Amino acid sequence: MTNGPSTALVQAGTIRPEDFGNHITRRLSSMKGQYLDQTAYERMLGQEDSLLYEVYELLRPEKEGELLSGLSIVHPGKVGNEYFMTKGHFHEVLETAEIYLCLSGRGMMVMETPEGDWSVKELTPGVSLYVPPRWAHRSVNTGASEDLVTYFIYPAHAGHDYGTIETRGFRKLVTEGADGPQIIDNPKWVEAAV
Amino acid sequence: MTNGPSTALVQAGTIRPEDFGNHITRRLSSMKGQYLDQTAYERMLGQEDSLLYEVYELLRPEKEGELLSGLSIVHPGKVGNEYFMTKGHFHEVLETAEIYLCLSGRGMMVMETPEGDWSVKELTPGVSLYVPPRWAHRSVNTGASEDLVTYFIYPAHAGHDYGTIETRGFRKLVTEGADGPQIIDNPKWVEAAV
Repeated sequence: MTNGPSTALVQAGTIRPEDFGNHITRRLSSMKGQYLDQTAYERMLGQEDSLLYEVYELLRPEKEGELLSGLSIVHPGKVGNEYFMTKGHFHEVLETAEIYLCLSGRGMMVMETPEGDWSVKELTPGVSLYVPPRWAHRSVNTGASEDLVTYFIYPAHAGHDYGTIETRGFRKLVTEGADGPQIIDNPKWVEAAV
Repeated sequence: MTNGPSTALVQAGTIRPEDFGNHITRRLSSMKGQYLDQTAYERMLGQEDSLLYEVYELLRPEKEGELLSGLSIVHPGKVGNEYFMTKGHFHEVLETAEIYLCLSGRGMMVMETPEGDWSVKELTPGVSLYVPPRWAHRSVNTGASEDLVTYFIYPAHAGHDYGTIETRGFRKLVTEGADGPQIIDNPKWVEAAV
């Protein structure tokens, strides 16, 4: 972490993930119970613990006033007919926003609030998406062969709550249908206890 | 302002400034005393109150946890041999960062802290610049004919302190020299009263 201003290259064609300090990888084994087709999940896992996505994050102090930024790279693929996706999370400090700028590839951001609102927005290169405070978010790569690369920025004190989604899931899933990506209800979604 | 997630197009070739709600324009007359060559400034102003730069900003609540984002478009041109630039500012809440992503054009970000540190970073397409908390910042278009377009994001409670720079100036200026853009000491820079 430098004390002064620093730069990184993030535009398609010039992206340099190594400009970001922290490298996180997520494999199939870390997504237990998240995919609808459990038979397909177990069969795939038996063959290979595939790399689903990677995150590169600029190291900054995790305190109010700072920003955390980095690259999210979701690889192409499916578990059954459900696309590779990130775990998805609420922010621990719920009242914090996040911005995603799609740099390359094609995908969708699945979002929902604790109050029951949901939204799915398409991600294509050049799209900047504002995820308001209170909205959980998960990115899904709907491309056949290309990585979905997004550049994200959020308040550094936001933190991550992965547990709520791991337990309840998202209300909506993105699967491959006859005419391409489709948004379906998640039959395994669990309503929060009141 | 929508309550839910919203999108805007910001990548070079697909930029849609109209996706952002608020449009701010800054003309030559608003930069009184900021350019080194006052004679050139007055002469230019006598001919036309030129548009120096424009800002498009997504309307969001200006409170902690939200992010303000938008496009900054600095037009090409010079006052004497000093390039068109933004007013530049500290954040009112000094301990807040900002991220600038250069989308098109070529320029420099001039930065300094109240403690006397300074830094000038080059902006070219794809460069993401982290401006840490405490650093005042001004973008300068060093291109001959192209707009300098950046996409900026900062904590929504940061606020703007333009007054300090208007009174004291930046320690460094960017002017056109024999070999292109050069960074020079600002002879009119005023040290802060202790």
